[in-house]
Amino acid sequence: MLTLYGTLESGNCYKARLAMHQLAVEFEWIEIDILKGESRTADFLAKNPNGRVPVLELDDGSYLAESNAILWYLAESSPLLPTDRLERARVLQWMCFEQYSHEPFIATSRFYIHLLQDPQGHAELLAAKQDPGYAALAVMERRLEHADWIACDTYSIADIALYAYTHVAHEGGFDLGAYGAVRAWIDRVAAQPAHALITAV
Amino acid sequence: MLTLYGTLESGNCYKARLAMHQLAVEFEWIEIDILKGESRTADFLAKNPNGRVPVLELDDGSYLAESNAILWYLAESSPLLPTDRLERARVLQWMCFEQYSHEPFIATSRFYIHLLQDPQGHAELLAAKQDPGYAALAVMERRLEHADWIACDTYSIADIALYAYTHVAHEGGFDLGAYGAVRAWIDRVAAQPAHALITAV
Repeated sequence: MLTLYGTLESGNCYKARLAMHQLAVEFEWIEIDILKGESRTADFLAKNPNGRVPVLELDDGSYLAESNAILWYLAESSPLLPTDRLERARVLQWMCFEQYSHEPFIATSRFYIHLLQDPQGHAELLAAKQDPGYAALAVMERRLEHADWIACDTYSIADIALYAYTHVAHEGGFDLGAYGAVRAWIDRVAAQPAHALITAV
Repeated sequence: MLTLYGTLESGNCYKARLAMHQLAVEFEWIEIDILKGESRTADFLAKNPNGRVPVLELDDGSYLAESNAILWYLAESSPLLPTDRLERARVLQWMCFEQYSHEPFIATSRFYIHLLQDPQGHAELLAAKQDPGYAALAVMERRLEHADWIACDTYSIADIALYAYTHVAHEGGFDLGAYGAVRAWIDRVAAQPAHALITAV
């Protein structure tokens, strides 16, 4: 059985949990308290030298890190990852967008506000993340104004990757009020089968 | 024929150029001067709403963005991307590591120092990027101390992705002196066939 090491409140870990529920893959969950430094112990660094969650332990005892690489591994040969070469590249395009242009602003803002509960202590940093965070939401809005799903004609792991932190963007201080297409897409993702099995972010 | 829109000095664009040379894929190059705002014009935003280079124009006239998604698209069914499911996920793991834990520190430092030529005007930002940049190099060193290639047993697009900014890390103010395994790997990548065809970063 697969084992997922992660933090329940982490959107990056939520991605893998949601995908495994939707793919009906059984797994054991091991909670890692990143605020207590549990992702930087020698034991954890042996699993992922980069000291980040999530990490997936495979049946052969080896480890796979990086949320989007884990999603890709889990979704191979499933409806969550298309078979067409260009469609697969488009899925990856949006997953790269998520990690570079979305997560560092929206997810990290949520980290300071919602997890550390210390927006005052990070006011300057949070202010600097507002414009690029909203720019990422605007890129999503532009795509979703004329498409049901973010990367291709069907629901894919790119939707899972971007849903993880977008649906809790308000916890990072981002107001989705002006992003109607994004909000409608959030509802579509939440209506996917097996979605209800997973509750917390 | 494929068309690549990019900036000659950009490592993210260099990734695609190097892969196409090594795969003997013909392409037309169109230089985009990001310092003059050419990646933020209405015409360019129609190609990539995220306003970033590189962008690959395909034979059907559609566009693909994000350097690592372009690499993945180009390398499918080639020796630069393994066929095994787990090996492919490991390639992606290291490409995600590159975009999240390496590029935002080493590449952006190089941008301020080498391209903008204004380290004084970004001194505080550059100082903040030193520790995470060296941490990324340490993660690479730890892997390369006991492996020839970054993701699997063979040279892959993960090596191309990480080589792009690592081999010019000094231009971003990072000293590779203490990273002997990384330096030996740089030499191995540079010795790959067709590498000499491409000169500038």
